[in-house]
Amino acid sequence: MLPRVRAAVAQLVAGLGAGAGGQPPAEPRGDGYGEGAAGGSFCRPAFLQLTAEELRRAGDRVGRAVQSPRDSRRLPWSTGYAEVINAGKSLHNEDQACCEVVFVERRPSLRGRPSSREGSRELDGGRRGFYFHYWALFDGHAGSGAAVMASRRLHLHICEQLRDLVDVLQDPSPPPICLPHNPRAGPAELSRVPLAEDDGEVPNDAAPRFHLEKAVSHESLVIGAIENAFKYMDNQIEQERASQHLSGGCCALAAIYLMGKFYVANAGDSRAIIIRNGEIIPMSREFTPETERQRLQFLAFLRPELLGKEFTHLEFPRRIQPKELGKKMLYRDQNMNGWAYKKVEEDDLKFPLIYGEGKKARVMATIGVTRGLGDHDLKVFSSNIHIKPFLSCFPEVRVYDLTQYEHCPDDVLVLGTDGLWDVTNDKEVASVVMEVLTSYEPNDPCRYTMVAQELVVRSRGVLKERGWRMANNKLGSGDDISVFVIPLGGPGNYT
Amino acid sequence: MLPRVRAAVAQLVAGLGAGAGGQPPAEPRGDGYGEGAAGGSFCRPAFLQLTAEELRRAGDRVGRAVQSPRDSRRLPWSTGYAEVINAGKSLHNEDQACCEVVFVERRPSLRGRPSSREGSRELDGGRRGFYFHYWALFDGHAGSGAAVMASRRLHLHICEQLRDLVDVLQDPSPPPICLPHNPRAGPAELSRVPLAEDDGEVPNDAAPRFHLEKAVSHESLVIGAIENAFKYMDNQIEQERASQHLSGGCCALAAIYLMGKFYVANAGDSRAIIIRNGEIIPMSREFTPETERQRLQFLAFLRPELLGKEFTHLEFPRRIQPKELGKKMLYRDQNMNGWAYKKVEEDDLKFPLIYGEGKKARVMATIGVTRGLGDHDLKVFSSNIHIKPFLSCFPEVRVYDLTQYEHCPDDVLVLGTDGLWDVTNDKEVASVVMEVLTSYEPNDPCRYTMVAQELVVRSRGVLKERGWRMANNKLGSGDDISVFVIPLGGPGNYT
Repeated sequence: MLPRVRAAVAQLVAGLGAGAGGQPPAEPRGDGYGEGAAGGSFCRPAFLQLTAEELRRAGDRVGRAVQSPRDSRRLPWSTGYAEVINAGKSLHNEDQACCEVVFVERRPSLRGRPSSREGSRELDGGRRGFYFHYWALFDGHAGSGAAVMASRRLHLHICEQLRDLVDVLQDPSPPPICLPHNPRAGPAELSRVPLAEDDGEVPNDAAPRFHLEKAVSHESLVIGAIENAFKYMDNQIEQERASQHLSGGCCALAAIYLMGKFYVANAGDSRAIIIRNGEIIPMSREFTPETERQRLQFLAFLRPELLGKEFTHLEFPRRIQPKELGKKMLYRDQNMNGWAYKKVEEDDLKFPLIYGEGKKARVMATIGVTRGLGDHDLKVFSSNIHIKPFLSCFPEVRVYDLTQYEHCPDDVLVLGTDGLWDVTNDKEVASVVMEVLTSYEPNDPCRYTMVAQELVVRSRGVLKERGWRMANNKLGSGDDISVFVIPLGGPGNYT
Repeated sequence: MLPRVRAAVAQLVAGLGAGAGGQPPAEPRGDGYGEGAAGGSFCRPAFLQLTAEELRRAGDRVGRAVQSPRDSRRLPWSTGYAEVINAGKSLHNEDQACCEVVFVERRPSLRGRPSSREGSRELDGGRRGFYFHYWALFDGHAGSGAAVMASRRLHLHICEQLRDLVDVLQDPSPPPICLPHNPRAGPAELSRVPLAEDDGEVPNDAAPRFHLEKAVSHESLVIGAIENAFKYMDNQIEQERASQHLSGGCCALAAIYLMGKFYVANAGDSRAIIIRNGEIIPMSREFTPETERQRLQFLAFLRPELLGKEFTHLEFPRRIQPKELGKKMLYRDQNMNGWAYKKVEEDDLKFPLIYGEGKKARVMATIGVTRGLGDHDLKVFSSNIHIKPFLSCFPEVRVYDLTQYEHCPDDVLVLGTDGLWDVTNDKEVASVVMEVLTSYEPNDPCRYTMVAQELVVRSRGVLKERGWRMANNKLGSGDDISVFVIPLGGPGNYT
């Protein structure tokens, strides 16, 4: 069980069937982005529409050429995008990206009668629903299968979860707590069940008659839909990993623009920030063995069998040697943020569940991120100890209300994989954004692509005798790097 | 199981032995505050030194007179304190308070030879150690026993935990990761065990040779000491609750000033804020069924047996009625922050683990705080379901470095029980602080007491025909209210 050992690098995905079974994805719809790649093997994001020659060049880990959509393939809102492959860390670029405009169509009333609920919109010749805009980055590890599949499917799962909410979200009154159990009922039959105080029926005499009803916002329904979409995405990867030869896992960062608000969902160590009038607004936080230490220790404490007798849930500042039995050693358990001394016992000689600092921190000496999709077969090296129970597929969703602020064309939402953030901090990203944007006309649609490219180039550095070096001569990122730059106040937004 | 039913109000504590067994508290020491009360039954904080007549008056729930130390009993740093009893909610004032200056004496070397470690101080004629200042509030519930005992003992547990650190904290070099196992060894023998890279000995061939050693700060050792002191305090209450007729539980909020830093430790729903130059700096957060929902749901999900077949770990916006089986109801589980619909099943008819909003939120319909001391016998009404497994005795500790900022006499740390904060928000407290302080001379030592009294009077209100009313005619707090106002830049501080 060597620290530098990761789970074996997986076989590349041979075929990822379109419209595969399992959790049923909605039919592909929207503007045509991404359709071309469905069912293919490993590839780059569909919206890049790379030719065979371009694909070869994008995969060159020596030249590390930066890729962006060409002008004719402009993304919605003139979004900027750029990516570069790693410097040899893995065979392929294990980052993936997706950008879509998705129509959420109300689930048809099977009774066949047209519904006419107040507040709902009719679009596209009678189809009722709404659009959302979607941008997402997936940072794969131990194989590219999970990232490729997630980049092709996650937005469809989100769409699927939102379909039940088409009527509810378009109705300004508070969402109903309870829906009728007949799925074929039209929306006019949505029952708002009377409160307990209006109703004499209680389960039994001993039960209380509560007069409470918690207010649930429209926003929290969208958050719940996104959270469950991540869960179903993870389930789909689990179910199809054998038949599709999927392997590995991925971090996922998605930005959804819906009805005036951005929902930024993050599971892993990618990051999103908004830069508004020069100010930095964090839109995500990273989920790593260090930031999630207490959740993991708590789980291991309650379910010690998950540690397979090889690990201890306690944290120590370094490995303990057998000759230190009986001495007093610093430790912390799941309840503590500080450190204290304890007498070293036999059990403390096991390897700690969480070990290492910063980028080197690992769960069971194996994985450096604690949320994401996939990894269902990930085990501790040469053991039968599964790591998936410690990983969460649930994102944290942060909401940004675009209507609460007047945005100018220089205000942007930046999404980046850790290849960017490992070497370029928030402030540096903000200053690159401002620097590049001021050198282009405010209405030049290329300016956001220029920012994305500059961020990638700056973080990659240039190849010198002693490796890839940034302007300050520090080592650039040898990792895959992917960046979206989404304008918040550009022309043509919010359509 | 009625919502308004709390665990039965416990018997009042008949006798609280001084120097009782169990987790051995350090010998009482310090400046004499609190000694008088040790071993007594229910009483008010020792530093008030109330006469029998004053005690009677303090316990009058109709008159609700505000209590403060008289001038001759001034607290360290001229700290202000005020309290008032509830309006009839419980027989006694279940809040307790403590203010102490505690000397932490290095544990004696049993070999009897004097130690001469560089950096340690000799004080009090050869006793080696340091002082810390201590202020704490305890908000009891379901009986006063736990709060009374904690107010008399918690600082001694903190002292006990710090005794092992006297040499380490006074040595500016990084704390040793490992201490020798011979407790009789002098501090000169503190071994700094060589790192793995300096040492060929590893457990076995398969084990890794880690070159990592995590840096641990002095500050995090103090945090760890405070955390464990809360744990030992809770253990002591558990062990002595039968012999001492202790009952109930309490929230605990403690501020420790040590070597230039404030450590504010909070377990429960009391609150601490610093007001510095008019700015509010939160020094705690509240632990309630709402703020700790996910921790509690996660525990219940992993250990369903703790729910005794009567509760479900899922949250619903209201009680579900049996006739709603099969309908779709909003819910959220331990992984979610948003809400989604699920089909109602038989199991969902159970009572939710977390139920109610705001001040009415309860764990298993019983308790509205999720951290604190005591409550070892607390059960769901007329059941055998224990609630203690869901409660944590561990505080969150926040650190404020007094040396990083030049403080003026108007800068204060305010500690208050929920009786204050339920009706007076941070901003209102800050404006009362500024208003009162400006009406006294900066060097008037009474001014902090005047602030504390004004905060209590304002939150209690005055008795009118329709109950206790505040200046805005809203209902004042009918709860016990206790407030410390600690000057950060007053004369005579930091000694």
